[in-house]
Amino acid sequence: MNSNAPTLYPELEYLGSATRFIEEILQLIDQIPFFGGFSDQEIQALTGYMGCYGAPRKARLLTEGQTDSHMLLLLTGRAAVLKNDSQGVEKIVAEAGPGTTLGEMSMIDVSPRSASCVTTEPTDFAVLTRGSLNEIFINSPRLGNKLLLVLLQLTMRRLREANDRLLLHATDRFL
Amino acid sequence: MNSNAPTLYPELEYLGSATRFIEEILQLIDQIPFFGGFSDQEIQALTGYMGCYGAPRKARLLTEGQTDSHMLLLLTGRAAVLKNDSQGVEKIVAEAGPGTTLGEMSMIDVSPRSASCVTTEPTDFAVLTRGSLNEIFINSPRLGNKLLLVLLQLTMRRLREANDRLLLHATDRFL
Repeated sequence: MNSNAPTLYPELEYLGSATRFIEEILQLIDQIPFFGGFSDQEIQALTGYMGCYGAPRKARLLTEGQTDSHMLLLLTGRAAVLKNDSQGVEKIVAEAGPGTTLGEMSMIDVSPRSASCVTTEPTDFAVLTRGSLNEIFINSPRLGNKLLLVLLQLTMRRLREANDRLLLHATDRFL
Repeated sequence: MNSNAPTLYPELEYLGSATRFIEEILQLIDQIPFFGGFSDQEIQALTGYMGCYGAPRKARLLTEGQTDSHMLLLLTGRAAVLKNDSQGVEKIVAEAGPGTTLGEMSMIDVSPRSASCVTTEPTDFAVLTRGSLNEIFINSPRLGNKLLLVLLQLTMRRLREANDRLLLHATDRFL
């Protein structure tokens, strides 16, 4: 059932299926907006498709430009989101803590990573691969609907924020 | 099966279920990115949940700030996307032609409309309500997965474009 095999991050500690962390996840639920849209039963089902890893500080979880296609859900710790500037120097563009999802875009449209992600503290995270997503569509299409709705809501919120910032920039120009 | 009753736009001509336009839709398919991700059979199923309307020039299809929750798919014609500026004056921010989807955000997160939409030419369009979307989730969850995946891909493409434009603005500041 779980195709998030330990092979995805061979250099990190594989902690097993996210189902093992269901108690912690249900306790943290208020801090994990991603899981806010799911019932306890749905979270239980979803974690069966997710594998967990433990990473030390300074572990690279995602690399800009790479074409892998899994998403991450940070459970503990902290990570920096980095992008290369025009000189090819990595700059921090955001910070991520528990409950943050990262890399959903490449999971959905299998496009190259738009940013890198490096832990700044020891971090436990869950992984959902594109393969597992396809398994959810086949085995539990209703859970698939819920998952895609939650991802769509998160993405739309980000698009609204980006559009608002663009509108601010446009207004700037006329001041 | 179809809850896109003629009541949504009482002032416009109701053309019936989108299934009646399936031939036209399948011929236009290359110009309708929204349907690009679906098989002919899936399009057939999807149109059963969509109602069609015919609008004259200058018909208001969406109103900024309003909290209705259906999306539109333009089949023919043309429309302007408008936003109020800080003085409350409507400004055209985009133009939409056949194949364009509008209003998906409010359908998904039931938030107020972020822009208005007014036809600039006589326009036929299909409507998918939040109610019909929920019916798809219940009756055809696999079709729901496909529909949400397509919407997610469209939204992510828009988010990437917005982020690229924001990055350009950020770079501007340092030139």
